[in-house]
Amino acid sequence: MNILVLNGPNLNLLGTREPEKYGSLTLKEIENKLSDYAKSNNFGIDFYQTNIEGELVDRIQQALGVFDGIVLNAGGYTHTSVAIRDAISSVNVPVVEVHLTNIHAREEFRQKSLLAPVCIGQISGFGYYSYILGLNAVINFVLSKVSE
Amino acid sequence: MNILVLNGPNLNLLGTREPEKYGSLTLKEIENKLSDYAKSNNFGIDFYQTNIEGELVDRIQQALGVFDGIVLNAGGYTHTSVAIRDAISSVNVPVVEVHLTNIHAREEFRQKSLLAPVCIGQISGFGYYSYILGLNAVINFVLSKVSE
Amino acid sequence: MNILVLNGPNLNLLGTREPEKYGSLTLKEIENKLSDYAKSNNFGIDFYQTNIEGELVDRIQQALGVFDGIVLNAGGYTHTSVAIRDAISSVNVPVVEVHLTNIHAREEFRQKSLLAPVCIGQISGFGYYSYILGLNAVINFVLSKVSE
Amino acid sequence: MNILVLNGPNLNLLGTREPEKYGSLTLKEIENKLSDYAKSNNFGIDFYQTNIEGELVDRIQQALGVFDGIVLNAGGYTHTSVAIRDAISSVNVPVVEVHLTNIHAREEFRQKSLLAPVCIGQISGFGYYSYILGLNAVINFVLSKVSE
Amino acid sequence: MNILVLNGPNLNLLGTREPEKYGSLTLKEIENKLSDYAKSNNFGIDFYQTNIEGELVDRIQQALGVFDGIVLNAGGYTHTSVAIRDAISSVNVPVVEVHLTNIHAREEFRQKSLLAPVCIGQISGFGYYSYILGLNAVINFVLSKVSE
Amino acid sequence: MNILVLNGPNLNLLGTREPEKYGSLTLKEIENKLSDYAKSNNFGIDFYQTNIEGELVDRIQQALGVFDGIVLNAGGYTHTSVAIRDAISSVNVPVVEVHLTNIHAREEFRQKSLLAPVCIGQISGFGYYSYILGLNAVINFVLSKVSE
Amino acid sequence: MNILVLNGPNLNLLGTREPEKYGSLTLKEIENKLSDYAKSNNFGIDFYQTNIEGELVDRIQQALGVFDGIVLNAGGYTHTSVAIRDAISSVNVPVVEVHLTNIHAREEFRQKSLLAPVCIGQISGFGYYSYILGLNAVINFVLSKVSE
Amino acid sequence: MNILVLNGPNLNLLGTREPEKYGSLTLKEIENKLSDYAKSNNFGIDFYQTNIEGELVDRIQQALGVFDGIVLNAGGYTHTSVAIRDAISSVNVPVVEVHLTNIHAREEFRQKSLLAPVCIGQISGFGYYSYILGLNAVINFVLSKVSE
Amino acid sequence: MNILVLNGPNLNLLGTREPEKYGSLTLKEIENKLSDYAKSNNFGIDFYQTNIEGELVDRIQQALGVFDGIVLNAGGYTHTSVAIRDAISSVNVPVVEVHLTNIHAREEFRQKSLLAPVCIGQISGFGYYSYILGLNAVINFVLSKVSE
Amino acid sequence: MNILVLNGPNLNLLGTREPEKYGSLTLKEIENKLSDYAKSNNFGIDFYQTNIEGELVDRIQQALGVFDGIVLNAGGYTHTSVAIRDAISSVNVPVVEVHLTNIHAREEFRQKSLLAPVCIGQISGFGYYSYILGLNAVINFVLSKVSE
Amino acid sequence: MNILVLNGPNLNLLGTREPEKYGSLTLKEIENKLSDYAKSNNFGIDFYQTNIEGELVDRIQQALGVFDGIVLNAGGYTHTSVAIRDAISSVNVPVVEVHLTNIHAREEFRQKSLLAPVCIGQISGFGYYSYILGLNAVINFVLSKVSE
Amino acid sequence: MNILVLNGPNLNLLGTREPEKYGSLTLKEIENKLSDYAKSNNFGIDFYQTNIEGELVDRIQQALGVFDGIVLNAGGYTHTSVAIRDAISSVNVPVVEVHLTNIHAREEFRQKSLLAPVCIGQISGFGYYSYILGLNAVINFVLSKVSE
Repeated sequence: MNILVLNGPNLNLLGTREPEKYGSLTLKEIENKLSDYAKSNNFGIDFYQTNIEGELVDRIQQALGVFDGIVLNAGGYTHTSVAIRDAISSVNVPVVEVHLTNIHAREEFRQKSLLAPVCIGQISGFGYYSYILGLNAVINFVLSKVSE
Repeated sequence: MNILVLNGPNLNLLGTREPEKYGSLTLKEIENKLSDYAKSNNFGIDFYQTNIEGELVDRIQQALGVFDGIVLNAGGYTHTSVAIRDAISSVNVPVVEVHLTNIHAREEFRQKSLLAPVCIGQISGFGYYSYILGLNAVINFVLSKVSE
Repeated sequence: MNILVLNGPNLNLLGTREPEKYGSLTLKEIENKLSDYAKSNNFGIDFYQTNIEGELVDRIQQALGVFDGIVLNAGGYTHTSVAIRDAISSVNVPVVEVHLTNIHAREEFRQKSLLAPVCIGQISGFGYYSYILGLNAVINFVLSKVSE
Repeated sequence: MNILVLNGPNLNLLGTREPEKYGSLTLKEIENKLSDYAKSNNFGIDFYQTNIEGELVDRIQQALGVFDGIVLNAGGYTHTSVAIRDAISSVNVPVVEVHLTNIHAREEFRQKSLLAPVCIGQISGFGYYSYILGLNAVINFVLSKVSE
Repeated sequence: MNILVLNGPNLNLLGTREPEKYGSLTLKEIENKLSDYAKSNNFGIDFYQTNIEGELVDRIQQALGVFDGIVLNAGGYTHTSVAIRDAISSVNVPVVEVHLTNIHAREEFRQKSLLAPVCIGQISGFGYYSYILGLNAVINFVLSKVSE
Repeated sequence: MNILVLNGPNLNLLGTREPEKYGSLTLKEIENKLSDYAKSNNFGIDFYQTNIEGELVDRIQQALGVFDGIVLNAGGYTHTSVAIRDAISSVNVPVVEVHLTNIHAREEFRQKSLLAPVCIGQISGFGYYSYILGLNAVINFVLSKVSE
Repeated sequence: MNILVLNGPNLNLLGTREPEKYGSLTLKEIENKLSDYAKSNNFGIDFYQTNIEGELVDRIQQALGVFDGIVLNAGGYTHTSVAIRDAISSVNVPVVEVHLTNIHAREEFRQKSLLAPVCIGQISGFGYYSYILGLNAVINFVLSKVSE
Repeated sequence: MNILVLNGPNLNLLGTREPEKYGSLTLKEIENKLSDYAKSNNFGIDFYQTNIEGELVDRIQQALGVFDGIVLNAGGYTHTSVAIRDAISSVNVPVVEVHLTNIHAREEFRQKSLLAPVCIGQISGFGYYSYILGLNAVINFVLSKVSE
Repeated sequence: MNILVLNGPNLNLLGTREPEKYGSLTLKEIENKLSDYAKSNNFGIDFYQTNIEGELVDRIQQALGVFDGIVLNAGGYTHTSVAIRDAISSVNVPVVEVHLTNIHAREEFRQKSLLAPVCIGQISGFGYYSYILGLNAVINFVLSKVSE
Repeated sequence: MNILVLNGPNLNLLGTREPEKYGSLTLKEIENKLSDYAKSNNFGIDFYQTNIEGELVDRIQQALGVFDGIVLNAGGYTHTSVAIRDAISSVNVPVVEVHLTNIHAREEFRQKSLLAPVCIGQISGFGYYSYILGLNAVINFVLSKVSE
Repeated sequence: MNILVLNGPNLNLLGTREPEKYGSLTLKEIENKLSDYAKSNNFGIDFYQTNIEGELVDRIQQALGVFDGIVLNAGGYTHTSVAIRDAISSVNVPVVEVHLTNIHAREEFRQKSLLAPVCIGQISGFGYYSYILGLNAVINFVLSKVSE
Repeated sequence: MNILVLNGPNLNLLGTREPEKYGSLTLKEIENKLSDYAKSNNFGIDFYQTNIEGELVDRIQQALGVFDGIVLNAGGYTHTSVAIRDAISSVNVPVVEVHLTNIHAREEFRQKSLLAPVCIGQISGFGYYSYILGLNAVINFVLSKVSE
């Protein structure tokens, strides 16, 4: 099993970006934790981060046949991107939406996700641990499909 | 560590209630799975379900000093109850909101949670597995507080 | 055939409660009229009234296998209760929503019923006679299902 | 006692028009059922259908002194016609609004009736049987007025 | 100079229609008053009333070259008719909108006129005298154009 | 009979203020026309203009017992002043609201008058002639009250 | 193959009606162009125009079995008519909605079509050529259905 | 004179619940202060607190004939409960709504009270002293009724 | 201790202004009652009324150092004045907002106060007695600050 | 004459992407059909697809002087991109907006195009044939400009 | 060149008014800085501050022929005053709107300026330096007009 | 001191793009003016323009440690980009938002800036001179921070 962890705009700044809100771990440190977790649990994992909306679209499209699932933190595009939403609908790869912060406790415009309705589900508010939960969620989903 | 799993209205009907939407496991079967999970992972767990809003308020209030965290599926009250929201704000016990279905993909009125802004975070869309993720999330939260 | 007539908050005050709006019959007097009507038309009837939202949920859940249909006046919960709505969706018993007053001619917040979309239909504005119409409607519905 | 059953746009297509939604009875067949019902119950009944908004206004105006009550299904004009609303307010004839489908379970724009606030009440969701209920409702209303 | 006084739905019922709101004069009596006024002031006047939206459209279209101005009370169509609005924009005849009642003091949906933005102006609230004012307004408008 | 013509902010600039919108007559010239009209028609007339909201309130209050009616163009305060609205409700003097331009054809925020619901009626769109119509309207109103 | 070209209110005024917006061709001239086009392309064509909403409903109903498709410009009723919408849903004849002007670049209330969701598609903004495109679209649709 | 002080959900937690917002007095301590105040001012007082919406409905209903007035802090139900609103309308006992915090300075959803329109008045923002003011207000209201 | 009682537009008309709504006491009579109350309770009191928004701003600014608290009824400016709101925020004098009528039971636009969020609290609905309660509230607030 | 056919995000997936919605032709197959059509009708055609919003902006800018018109399907950016809208306004090249599906029959957020107001017109709902119609529309537009 | 710096309500309190928001300079100190700046840059400058909306209207009207431009901080009237907006439109003097704080980062109701659409432009967020920028902006505007 | 002037989509077309709205200077010409200004005032300046949202995010991120401030005209992304907003919040570099046109006088969707709340301030409406003002504003801000 192979999972893609896809990060959108400004997540490359983690650790220095408003650490009281987003935590003090850098994106690299989070990715290392996730890699360790993948190794311990015997699944493959890959990472990609970009600030460009269309490149997120590209990567989601390219995941088909390569990855069994995607853990996606689309950052600011979560709330505005019909293009990413359509990419998720277009490929037959399950996507779990994750957020470091509890988006439902923040500004009004951050509480609505355009992507959530086409993802399996959403996990929000647990810092870097949201990614761990997201990995578990997507793997569990894939396995339950297989066992059907 | 002791966790309370609190379920609101109509969740007592799980298994028979629109199973294509909510899954075919009964609430009892889910609780058994969660008990097994708790046993394997060495933490205490307790369950309560009620159809009455004020009894959810009561239970959240009574959790203080008894439980280290709450995994809450408030069912239909999620979207309308200021009273439950205030109960969560009033006690010093971390609460994780979970949902079996992806509420962000359902009717407009189900997409907004009045409770989420006062919970640690929200997990929605993974069937019974949302509870497993919720347990992990609340335990991880408590441990990270302790280790600070 | 057995029908449950279920009344929500403040309907126990009928007769004394704003009689120019709700009529001068007490709930007991209405129930007697409905009992007589049931006897004349050879079907069973039972009554329950409560001011507590969760108890309405309970009763709707318990109707399964006991009653062939429900005539429901949920009073003030009509406009706010996702929990009752979910109870109706969860059980396989047809429900007809009735109101004494014409709710579409009253305050804005009374014109929208959260329950109506999951009921068979809605009857509103005919005083106690709304219940008689509701009984006819639910019985006709059950019979037409049987005859299919 | 004489009752007018007034039907608006597209109801002349009943039976062929989306029968899974509106039922398989033609308007003629429904009118025959209602005629039989009227005969059995000893009251006069008359029918009119038109696709033209202004003709519905005309007929409502002309009902004064001829009919004791009106059962009205204004079809698509239900949601948009101030003119029909004003006609109902203008004549001193009680009107009961009926709908074959449960309009409260359909598109947003069909859930609001401009006419309901000036009718005695509204009955919606019981197929052709909505008309039978409507006849009962309007007759009961007229009789209760007489007996006052 | 020739002026058309055009009345829409339900205005044929004036005098009997909610007289506490619309006054006790019949439409005929108002038209007689306006005829007298026209005679005293040496201008031609004609009247038309219909309950049908499209016939109002027809009459407005036909006014071109026949009438110098129109005094229009479109009744309930005032608030909903794009078709009448477009008819007014399409012909080169000045139109003054009049209302018997003060529409700005009535229900929310009556306070907005779809027609007003394409009329010269609006006069509302003076009972039958609104028509007298409307005649003066349209005549003054035509004369001021001529004198330019 | 004595009528007060009351003008609000910026109407002192008439003639120079956007003349393509408000006309080329100065306020003085309009007042002269109205004085002539009053003389010809044997009624008393007085004028007041101010840019200050509270002074409009003062003048409306002081009109009681001095004037039989008011023709009011409250300018920009028309759309925002609860205070002027309350002044009109508070005194027992009929007020007719007038506007030079057709406010219903202008910016959204100008289409809603906070004052209209407590005035007898509204006249808008006829340039200086709106005042003439307003005088007629208020005088006709007073006379019809007297003759009742 | 037979196509009906159906035009709603005020389209009979084309050529004289705001020609800078709607073009200088009369409806007759457009119909002639369309007739020529039909002749060249070997399909039957018929035309109807009316200002009355209910007659548009009538014609759409009557098209069943007579025409293979409809090109519809419902004019001002496009934005307000539930009745026409229901007529389109009720008959099994494909309808293409066309507009001379680009309705999406005009007033807010013209940008929303109540009819579009039940038509095959919408073409707007190309003057008389919108009808030519509409004919092609409906014919292509019918042929592709046939060839399935 | 007997007054009922009725408290809704989470008010049993006063003193420990967000004391920087709600103050450091427990509900018991507040009730003692109010008892003392009642004793000094020679009127009877009784207290009830519940977290259950329907029990607030019950208590308000039962107040009739027992209490001369009610001071009500419905907590989170203030903003959502049509049922409590209807209870207040149904009984002939004057109710004063009180709040410890200034609800108009808090979250949007707390600024609107569904109950206020059927209470005599509302007092909000003065901590425990809001209850003292509420007692004075309701007593003054009862006395002024008596002296009429 | 010195308290300023500040009244806004139209409150000078009390007694004659819609007495069924605002009571039959004149402003002078209310002020006398408040003076007596102040004398009995040993605090200083002063009064000011104006119809001009900016003068209310002036007076609030000038209260600093002169008065210990303000009881403010800003009348119609309550709902529209950012300027008065800013004045209250700008000076360090506690302000209690009072209303004679229950503003939450009146027109939509009267239910929202722009001032309330920057006042200590709001009291509404008790006629002249709202001022007595307001005096108590502001004095109690000042004393509790002193005793801290 | 040279036309650019510009496709936005996810249109590269046509054929595999939700074929029941978007059809079974791949983008390559559609482009081939359009090339053939261009050859038959003697005009030049070029194609470009990108998932990146800014590259659509680039291409529209670069079209000036190279292409006589653009047929644009901006995919998900249709509903959110002010940048593409501004690009269209900025260059003097006519643009026709096309959609495979009937966007007016889909989710609310897809019904509003930010681009349409600055395009010549919009064609939506005819599958790949929308492009053919778009080519005809833009060519007809260019030719009619030339012939003026 | 002569510039008027016009300040609205509560700006007379600068220095003492919420200094953490508005800075610690008094209005006098800001005016001195602006005077020095004017002297150094060889243009005339004058100042006026008032808390009364109508006096701002007066001053803007009187600026015509006296000042070449206005730098306006209308304080709380910025968001509510149609009267000041109309004054700016009425006189032929360029106005630059300035704000000490960044109004777009404050309460919702402060983010919308009713005045901005009729000013040359808006500068907000730079403390007293907003006035310096405003002076530069208005002077540059006047000079560029002259040099045209 | 080093300042980055960052321009978003379509600003590369300045001079040819709707010059009556955006002016006749090309971006190059504006940049030259700004370079001259920087040289005269002894600070460093750099320029970057891109049509791609993510590249604006990149450049803002890279400014940290390189530039002391940013003058940003994000063009069409101003109104839609949460990603750029988050980039500004993420880096510790002051940003001033500038616009050539007065965005508050344009289409509704251009009046709201998603970026403004996280910038120091906003300057809009002064053509190329907005950049000059922006440079002054950001430099003044940096200097005042240094001198604290």
